[in-house]
This record gives sequence, structure tokens and C-alpha cells, in this order.
Amino acid sequence: LKILFSSRIEAPERWLPLLQSLLPEDEFVLEGGNDIDVAIVASPHPGVLKRLGNAKLIQSLWMGVERLLEDPDLPRNVPLARLVDPGMTAAMTETVLAHTLDWHRRLYRYREQQKTRTWKRFRQYMASDHTVGILGMGALGTAASRPLLDLGFKVVGWSRRAKTVEGVACYTDLHEVLLRSDVVVCLLPLTAQTQGVLNLENLKKIREGGGVINCARGPHVVRDDLIAVLDSGHLAHAWLDVFDKEPLPEDDPLWTHPKVSVTPHAAALTEPRTAVVEIAKNIEAVRRGERPPHLVDFQAGY
Amino acid sequence: LKILFSSRIEAPERWLPLLQSLLPEDEFVLEGGNDIDVAIVASPHPGVLKRLGNAKLIQSLWMGVERLLEDPDLPRNVPLARLVDPGMTAAMTETVLAHTLDWHRRLYRYREQQKTRTWKRFRQYMASDHTVGILGMGALGTAASRPLLDLGFKVVGWSRRAKTVEGVACYTDLHEVLLRSDVVVCLLPLTAQTQGVLNLENLKKIREGGGVINCARGPHVVRDDLIAVLDSGHLAHAWLDVFDKEPLPEDDPLWTHPKVSVTPHAAALTEPRTAVVEIAKNIEAVRRGERPPHLVDFQAGY
Repeated sequence: LKILFSSRIEAPERWLPLLQSLLPEDEFVLEGGNDIDVAIVASPHPGVLKRLGNAKLIQSLWMGVERLLEDPDLPRNVPLARLVDPGMTAAMTETVLAHTLDWHRRLYRYREQQKTRTWKRFRQYMASDHTVGILGMGALGTAASRPLLDLGFKVVGWSRRAKTVEGVACYTDLHEVLLRSDVVVCLLPLTAQTQGVLNLENLKKIREGGGVINCARGPHVVRDDLIAVLDSGHLAHAWLDVFDKEPLPEDDPLWTHPKVSVTPHAAALTEPRTAVVEIAKNIEAVRRGERPPHLVDFQAGY
Repeated sequence: LKILFSSRIEAPERWLPLLQSLLPEDEFVLEGGNDIDVAIVASPHPGVLKRLGNAKLIQSLWMGVERLLEDPDLPRNVPLARLVDPGMTAAMTETVLAHTLDWHRRLYRYREQQKTRTWKRFRQYMASDHTVGILGMGALGTAASRPLLDLGFKVVGWSRRAKTVEGVACYTDLHEVLLRSDVVVCLLPLTAQTQGVLNLENLKKIREGGGVINCARGPHVVRDDLIAVLDSGHLAHAWLDVFDKEPLPEDDPLWTHPKVSVTPHAAALTEPRTAVVEIAKNIEAVRRGERPPHLVDFQAGY
């Protein structure tokens, strides 16, 4: 097969040697025309997408595909696969766990106290005293629920379609999840339905003193609504990895808000060592004339 | 049985109702003389220990008993039990996990960057790229190893006596553990042998860029040696919950060191809801004339 790699962000030298070693008989190219069989893309170079009408698969290097779907050049007749990368999934689990424990153990408050050299203990809670609400019970949400449950947290999950995940109370009604949650973790795909889901009305439903962790996409959270619930004292802290505009502009109030921890869209990066295994599986499926898993539902938008 | 509760720190009103409900036929008192059968203590009131020579058990409310052992009034003929509290153990696991992930995900560096509104991603590592060294493979170290292993970290452990813990490479030679460790977690009892164990020579053996988490006792770490290895850049960050003097004095350089996170001896507190179950079991053992588990070895010092 002739396989195109095109990205303005991911470096081909990190990817091509690993891909070539798993797919030794295929030809990898960095530019190509109508003869491409499979295109591996992540912010592809301009003009690339519109020449892919004859391809058998467009494989995203990322899990989020909302930018590709917005692009009018994306051929809608070609199957588009999201990358469900075990390394990226594991990284997200680590990050969700780190931030949840930061809230649960009150470490964000101890950091504030350190600034004023204040030695004061807060009341300790058991994990089973707290409920973590996960918005988005796909691969990421399901994986993140596991160690939280193992530690003893109660976990509730929200998804568009009814799901069954062991140990997690799953709801399709967001209201039910928010009312039960001390910490809300957003791992949703960005679609017309999920944009702005963490707005004032919904943020107020989270339990008093709770936290918000957004590791999905910036527009899931209405920034000024979040600042309002933090300033009112209803919520205690927010951990934000994603923003409406990235890099987060220097004058954005989130940078300096004392109740906000900012990370630079680094919650979970694609891990080439594990991702290439998934990509190779998808390409082998194409070679056999089969449809790979995790194809984007253009109607649902992810 | 006549059971004395004596503590200058733990409030009897948090403990006695729970204890009484599990041991309805026993008599609980806050003061007493030579007729006490069991004494439950944590920093007991002055003069209490020396009247306990006829007791059948002295039950600490804490896991660390070095202060009791230093007290010349402690009767050496009476069995002394450390409290191995499942709630406290779970809390320690949470804290160790939180700090290890803070290091592994570079969250301490992202917090520094937030201060200067710097948007820069660091390289991501997989958990399996990193080794956590646990000093002290008793109840706490063994429990903390579990979720670390589940996340994929390599775990090595050091203990005085040879141990076998599933998934953990256990050594009795400290040198072997430190050389393999990216992050070192101190969960040791404080004894003559473990005091100052994290000195300059040993801290330098930890892998470059690594971290130190001390949730045991302040004197395990030689403060100025730790500051030296942080300042030299050999180690990246330290998470300290315990100190030579507590509360940490206002003029201590650890409060303001940019590579040190200070918490006020709050890594893991005794959890009355779970601890009383263990205490009741020990008291039932005394009632049957048996020796409860977790008795202090006066020779070993813990």
C-alpha cells in the first residue's frame, strides 16, 4: 500500500521508522496525489485532504477529530478512523487520577498555604466519601474509571448512549451525574451537542466544594461561567488542560486565577510506541478489505 | 475491660462513641490508675504511661511509635501495638500516588510555568519508563505499590528484612534500590538505623531528574543535603510532609524553596471509622488472652 504521512505538528521522523518496521512492505511518502491508499494525518498540510478521495482510509493520529470534520476538503466518502492509542489512554488515566487526588487530598489548598507558610491540616476524607463524575464514557472515561474505583471512589458516568461499565453508575441524563458529583472530569468529544456543556447552570449542579477537570476540549467549558462558580466559592478548584484558544493567550484571566491550574494541552499525548501498533492493525484491516474499528460516525460528529 | 483513652491531640469525642459501639460491655475512661486493662494512646497526657505497668495492652492510635519508645515512662513489660489502620493506609496510598503522578506527569513544572504564563509541553513518558523506589515495604509500602504497579510503573522496594511482594523487586541493600529509582518514596519507621537515611551520598544515587517523597518522619531526610541535590539540579523536586521540627518553623528554607512542596504532616491521618475496627479486634484478642498483631519489637524499635 502507498501510505501518506502528513502533519504540521507531529514530526515524521518520530513516526516513520516505527511504522516502517511494523509494515515493512508498504511504501511511506510525505507527499502524494490521487494514488494514496491510506493517509495518516494530524493537522495535515494544506491541500492534502482534498486529494484523498480515492483513499481507503484516513487515519487520524489523534483521538479528537473535530478539526478534520470542520475542514470542507475532507472527503466524506472515505472512512475516517480516530486513533484510540493505549499509551495516550494510559496517560489520560494518569492525569485524571493525579488531578482527582489533588482535589481529594486537598493538595491544591496546601500549595496555597505554603505560599504564606501556613501549617494547617484539613479534614481527611476517604475515597468512598467522594463521587467522581466522568463526562464521556468512551475508551478514555472507561479506562480512567478503573483506578478510581480501585481506590474506593464512587464513579458516575455520562454518555449520549446508554453504557454498561463495571462499577460505574452510568446515566444518559447529565443532570443525574452532576448532582451526584464532587469532581467532574470532562473527557467528551467536541460536538455541537457537547459544546458549552459546562455552563453556569450545569456547573452549579456539582456538589459544593467540588472540582472540575477538563482534559477534553476548551469549548466544553464556558470560561466566564467557570470563573463565576469558582469566585462564588461554590466550586473549589479547576484543572484545565484545554482552552478555547491555544496556546492560552497571555492576557487570559485563567492564567492567574488562584483557583485554576493550567497545563498546556499536555494531559495525554499520543505515544508513538503504542500508537503505531494500532495504526498497523487498522492498515492490515484495510489490506484485507475490512473496516477498521473506531471509525468516525459523521452524523454523530466523532 | 477498663479502657483508658489518653491523647493530647486526638479528640476523645471523635473516638469514644465509635469504640463504645463496637465494645458495648467495656468501660471507657479518660483518666485512670493502676486498674487499667488497655490504654489507647496518642501523645498521652503527662503521667499516664508510668501508671500502666499492670495493663495488658498499650494500643497506639498512630502507626509511628518512636515518641512513645523514647518516653522513659513507657512500661517495657506491657505489649505495645502500633495501629495499622486500613483507612490511614489507603490515605497514604492516595498521597504517594498523587505525588508520584505529580512527578511523572511533570505537573510541578507546569505549575512553575503557569506563574510566568508559559505554554510549553514537556516530553511525555509512559509509566513503564519509570521506576518508583519504596523505602519500607511494610503495610504502607506494600499497599502503595499496588496501584503504582497497576498503572505500569516499575517498583523496587527496600526493607531491613527480605520481603516478597508480588510485582515488586525487593532488596535489603539500599544501594540497589536507589540506583534503580527515578522517584524515592520514604515510608520507613524512624529508628536509629533509618535516621538520616536520605543523606547526600544516598540522594545522589537516585537517577538524575528524579524526585523524593517523604511521608514518614522528618529525620529520615537530611534537610541541607536534600536542598543541595535540588539546587545542583540532580533531583527535580521533593514532596515533604514531615519535618525535623513540626510545625515547620516559619524561617525554614523548605517553605520557600521552589523545588519543594510542603504539606503539614497530612499525608495520611488515622481514620476513626476504620481504625476502631482494628482496635476492637486487638482488644478482643486481649480478652481471649491472645497477643494482638502488629506488636512493637522493642529491640528493632518499631
